[in-house]
Amino acid sequence: MPLQNFLNPNRQPGLPQRFWTRFGTVLLAVSTMAILGAGAGIAQTPTALDPTQEFQVIVDTLWVLFAGVLVFFMNAGFCMLETGFCRSKNAVSLLAKNLIVFALATLAYWLIGFGLMFGNGTPFFGTSGFLLQGTDTSPLVGDAYNGVFESLSWAGIPLKAKFFFQLVFAGTAATIVSGAIAERVKFGSFFVFSFLLVGLCYPVVGHWVWGGGWLSHLGFWDFAGSTVVHSVGGWAGLVGTLLLGARYRRYQGTNSLVMPAHNLSISTLGCLILWLGWFGFNAGSTLAADPAAISHIFLTTNLGAALGAIGATVTSWVYLESPDLSMIINGVLAGLVGVTASCAYVNLGSTAIIGLVAGVIVVFSVITLDQLKIDDPVGAISVHLVCGIWGTLAVGLFSVGPGVYSWYEVGGGPAAGLFFNGGLQQFFAQLIGIMAVGCYTTLFSFIVWLLIKTTMGIRVSRTEEIHGLDLSQHGMEAYGGFFDPQVNKDL
Amino acid sequence: MPLQNFLNPNRQPGLPQRFWTRFGTVLLAVSTMAILGAGAGIAQTPTALDPTQEFQVIVDTLWVLFAGVLVFFMNAGFCMLETGFCRSKNAVSLLAKNLIVFALATLAYWLIGFGLMFGNGTPFFGTSGFLLQGTDTSPLVGDAYNGVFESLSWAGIPLKAKFFFQLVFAGTAATIVSGAIAERVKFGSFFVFSFLLVGLCYPVVGHWVWGGGWLSHLGFWDFAGSTVVHSVGGWAGLVGTLLLGARYRRYQGTNSLVMPAHNLSISTLGCLILWLGWFGFNAGSTLAADPAAISHIFLTTNLGAALGAIGATVTSWVYLESPDLSMIINGVLAGLVGVTASCAYVNLGSTAIIGLVAGVIVVFSVITLDQLKIDDPVGAISVHLVCGIWGTLAVGLFSVGPGVYSWYEVGGGPAAGLFFNGGLQQFFAQLIGIMAVGCYTTLFSFIVWLLIKTTMGIRVSRTEEIHGLDLSQHGMEAYGGFFDPQVNKDL
Amino acid sequence: MPLQNFLNPNRQPGLPQRFWTRFGTVLLAVSTMAILGAGAGIAQTPTALDPTQEFQVIVDTLWVLFAGVLVFFMNAGFCMLETGFCRSKNAVSLLAKNLIVFALATLAYWLIGFGLMFGNGTPFFGTSGFLLQGTDTSPLVGDAYNGVFESLSWAGIPLKAKFFFQLVFAGTAATIVSGAIAERVKFGSFFVFSFLLVGLCYPVVGHWVWGGGWLSHLGFWDFAGSTVVHSVGGWAGLVGTLLLGARYRRYQGTNSLVMPAHNLSISTLGCLILWLGWFGFNAGSTLAADPAAISHIFLTTNLGAALGAIGATVTSWVYLESPDLSMIINGVLAGLVGVTASCAYVNLGSTAIIGLVAGVIVVFSVITLDQLKIDDPVGAISVHLVCGIWGTLAVGLFSVGPGVYSWYEVGGGPAAGLFFNGGLQQFFAQLIGIMAVGCYTTLFSFIVWLLIKTTMGIRVSRTEEIHGLDLSQHGMEAYGGFFDPQVNKDL
Repeated sequence: MPLQNFLNPNRQPGLPQRFWTRFGTVLLAVSTMAILGAGAGIAQTPTALDPTQEFQVIVDTLWVLFAGVLVFFMNAGFCMLETGFCRSKNAVSLLAKNLIVFALATLAYWLIGFGLMFGNGTPFFGTSGFLLQGTDTSPLVGDAYNGVFESLSWAGIPLKAKFFFQLVFAGTAATIVSGAIAERVKFGSFFVFSFLLVGLCYPVVGHWVWGGGWLSHLGFWDFAGSTVVHSVGGWAGLVGTLLLGARYRRYQGTNSLVMPAHNLSISTLGCLILWLGWFGFNAGSTLAADPAAISHIFLTTNLGAALGAIGATVTSWVYLESPDLSMIINGVLAGLVGVTASCAYVNLGSTAIIGLVAGVIVVFSVITLDQLKIDDPVGAISVHLVCGIWGTLAVGLFSVGPGVYSWYEVGGGPAAGLFFNGGLQQFFAQLIGIMAVGCYTTLFSFIVWLLIKTTMGIRVSRTEEIHGLDLSQHGMEAYGGFFDPQVNKDL
Repeated sequence: MPLQNFLNPNRQPGLPQRFWTRFGTVLLAVSTMAILGAGAGIAQTPTALDPTQEFQVIVDTLWVLFAGVLVFFMNAGFCMLETGFCRSKNAVSLLAKNLIVFALATLAYWLIGFGLMFGNGTPFFGTSGFLLQGTDTSPLVGDAYNGVFESLSWAGIPLKAKFFFQLVFAGTAATIVSGAIAERVKFGSFFVFSFLLVGLCYPVVGHWVWGGGWLSHLGFWDFAGSTVVHSVGGWAGLVGTLLLGARYRRYQGTNSLVMPAHNLSISTLGCLILWLGWFGFNAGSTLAADPAAISHIFLTTNLGAALGAIGATVTSWVYLESPDLSMIINGVLAGLVGVTASCAYVNLGSTAIIGLVAGVIVVFSVITLDQLKIDDPVGAISVHLVCGIWGTLAVGLFSVGPGVYSWYEVGGGPAAGLFFNGGLQQFFAQLIGIMAVGCYTTLFSFIVWLLIKTTMGIRVSRTEEIHGLDLSQHGMEAYGGFFDPQVNKDL
Repeated sequence: MPLQNFLNPNRQPGLPQRFWTRFGTVLLAVSTMAILGAGAGIAQTPTALDPTQEFQVIVDTLWVLFAGVLVFFMNAGFCMLETGFCRSKNAVSLLAKNLIVFALATLAYWLIGFGLMFGNGTPFFGTSGFLLQGTDTSPLVGDAYNGVFESLSWAGIPLKAKFFFQLVFAGTAATIVSGAIAERVKFGSFFVFSFLLVGLCYPVVGHWVWGGGWLSHLGFWDFAGSTVVHSVGGWAGLVGTLLLGARYRRYQGTNSLVMPAHNLSISTLGCLILWLGWFGFNAGSTLAADPAAISHIFLTTNLGAALGAIGATVTSWVYLESPDLSMIINGVLAGLVGVTASCAYVNLGSTAIIGLVAGVIVVFSVITLDQLKIDDPVGAISVHLVCGIWGTLAVGLFSVGPGVYSWYEVGGGPAAGLFFNGGLQQFFAQLIGIMAVGCYTTLFSFIVWLLIKTTMGIRVSRTEEIHGLDLSQHGMEAYGGFFDPQVNKDL
């Protein structure tokens, strides 16, 4: 395979040499992967299945890809949400970060992340399955499983469908970070951090909980990722925020200067896209088209969001004296993050409480972080970290325990929670998981952010910040000449 | 279940007592539901099905949840459509209403609406199945059905999937109202009205037509809700508009002052999202993955929208002398509302006519309402009420009648329409249904709006209206400092 | 069927006679179709299938409709992308064109296009199946196929599902054009051109490649349409751009005046919606729910987009000295167009290269076209034509050839590519296809654009262009009174 032809500069004449020197390295690396990856699809040839098994594989795959597409769309949700919440002079920066982050996540998770997370290995991380290499004979073969992704062998769909669904999850963790550190972080530094978060941090946590690692053996349960996805993103954002410091002039003495959202239309759209995507996020985590389970999860997910919205609306109405739209938006998301860990394990009534409490919590968390001068422009830490913790604990409080829902028999689940006569056992398992993930992610983020700070720097200069990241980092404006009569008439 | 722990203020220190007094009431109410709802999931355990039946349940559930997700997304469509059509000083108000309305709909429909609509009871409303309590053994058990939702027993999917699909429909009815009464209604009053509309008005109409009530016995057919959903929303909006009066300075003497749309980009996006969602709205109403039926409905839905767009474009081009974008948008929606009632009962040619006529009607309806000084900022009454009536009548004109499409054998359908040699019988049944629903919804809306008017008031003060609902009702702007150099440079 | 009742002006009193004269013609035409179309649905009644076959039809139909819905949503993606990239004074024009274009595509493809493309006929175009008339007994009948759509008989889903999926593809080709010719084309001229492109040009090319025509016999392979859809749109746009000339003041002497994007928020949203829709575009082209195939295509599609984004980001960072958001956006789309032809035939490593190269190409293509003074406001020619060519050639370079992927056995596929020891045979077949399609589309577009130019004119006057197409062609603004204190306070 004469791939070196590609690297022959003569084929693309007229470009400066320095470009090809730098770019060639990237191309060479990927070319190598291409050679390595040449046989990757072969192992997917299905062995003979009877029609019943075959249809099971088909409907499960349809379901997981449908759910995965919804989760993918959450990228657009986060992108609109975060961009709208910030100032127009930083809009390009937010948009670019939220667009490129899923591309980076794809590369990082394919190269390293998926293997670390689901490849066979140690209780702490996987050591096989990088670049999707290695067999996975899982589709409905039961005991005859022969492959390197044992922790996912229970799911009877093609490996590539599993990978896609896990990839869109991994992307979510990274995209959460961009909101918390918005309006002052360097584009390149975010670029590097995201790659490492999705390549090295998120998969390790994922391995502990979903990849057959130590936390799963300890009895920690997190159905769709209140901790694995949302808290990880939240912790990484918190550390980033603390290392970056607040935006210029945000806190002066005891005053907190409100920096208004520049476009709540797109933020609200983003919120509704996220609500939409969450149906896939939660219900798709079954990795199987179990009608009873996915119907149940649709309702718990929706009820959590609804009561989160109502909780935050009422709280802000009463406490802040008007129904603040940004609080309603964060209330929806808080409710969703809140039910994510428990959506398959709790009944509808409990879901309503979990969502309602999350909606209340998020309002006070936003206020409290502001008082602590932790500058999170979009409320990402309150939504994803604080409500992620609440949601994970809620499993230990409200889980109905085994014997109630049919799908427990397939995938297992937590013991009954405190309010369902289960004592505090599950609650403490949840607490340990929360703390372990918090420690690891905080430490990882701290080290990586610090390394980036000392090498490339993480914060733009004050002048750049004042003029906006769009002009200083990207050389362009998001709304060029929108209302400039010069542009609109003279051009 | 020591839920009172939750209500112990000591767990959330530092909040003012007045907050907890008010909030406690809500929390207590929901806690009670939680206890009541604890067993709600148990009845869903499927009884033994053979593989064929099992797959039927799986694919039907996948289909209904997929369609339901599309309908859910229509919330984003309405939100963008309505917000963009109004002025920027009221954008937060529109966004907040369209976001919270689905949360309220979820709560109202879960508590009361679904039981009233589909629970067993009288020909006028259901009297069982509130809070989703009560068994539903429907999945493919045929004669052995044992439950309290007989009117939905024909659908072989889990109760919770049925509930989800019906819920997203209920949400649509409420969200239509917000457009018609935009730019002068009080946020709190809309909050209360929406809850009551979804909880008490829409479900009663739904019971008459889809819940085995008197209109269904009379032979009234409305496949996906031109009357049940769209007219109900339209009537409620019309009554609201009449009681509220026009926006300040909208009509002065014989002049009609145009109040321009502030963001047609998001309105167009909203229109396309609604078009997308309508595939789920119409085709999902089969509640079963019947390939021939859903393929047919996809085409009729799309053709209705397309010809509606063309009809409105040509009409506005000829009659208003330029192709008005807001008319094209409303033409798409008019075509969609127009085919909603008949999409499963008519052929493609008829669909083209129905859509085209709807597209023409909507332009003249908008103009006529304006001449009557009925101030509907987004054209909701023309689209949903007027074209809803047209679409419901179209069943009586164009229905192919039994024996043509295979799916009639399963779900039944209207007699042949006037233009298909069926006489006027079906047309009159449709007329009775339209009038009955119109009378009930108008009366209900009138009483509820009047009650709200005399207690909380429904219209903001003139000063508040002039300054915009965003600042006066929500204390914020949608586009804070968007182009303010002070914000963009100095902050 | 007394359809003349409809045309009786007495039923709609008060409208000017000239309106009804013109409008009556349209209505009459569609009425005729309605009569013709009356029996269109009957042939779809399924013949007796065993349960296994029945489920295959169900899941295949679900899959294709789901994928079709995603592709439909690409209309919203293109609409937001193109509108945001242009100036605010032309936003209504872009929105209106992108909204009406799918309505026109629906009508044109139903009346003529689908029959020309997939109806039985000659190697150059189909001659049957117009208005969806004619039988199609395809669902799983194998050799017993009896119908007029032989080229689609291999797909076991209802004809109407096939039509829907092909329709949303046809719409894509037309919507690409609107970007390249934006900001100076007449609305009416675009209206006519789009109708003819979807009715006469695209289907002929489609017949050659997918409808059993001469290019398919020659061994040309284009899985999901790098050439059939994207190049066709790109060529038509290129010809339009050349005939229209550059925007006023765009090129003066050797200077190229940047005309800034007015809303990159909605452009980025559009890009993410397109990325989303492309999962349906590529994976849906299987027309069957083959788990291994669709999972594979999801990954190649996503990897192409991701590496395209990274390629364009790095290239613009290095070469243009900052990570230009519009380049990142076009990089995503370039990667997607790049993998479209080969997504089912190449492995993941090759996909990464194809995407990366597309991301690099698109940046230099945009720069080169600018230097050639070919004024393409949104980069449509670079993305869809240039990368469409690259993607089609890539089949001849990277295809793994038969015997690797299971789905080759069903649908066939290209010979092994140059880098997979297949020699240049496939590459040359691809080259011939690219040139043939290029010649035909260019010629067609040239003639049609020229005819339009000499009759209705294609370009607005200079004054109209300076004032913007919104006011001059549509009589309205996209952002009416957005920040006008007069509107916001006094109204």
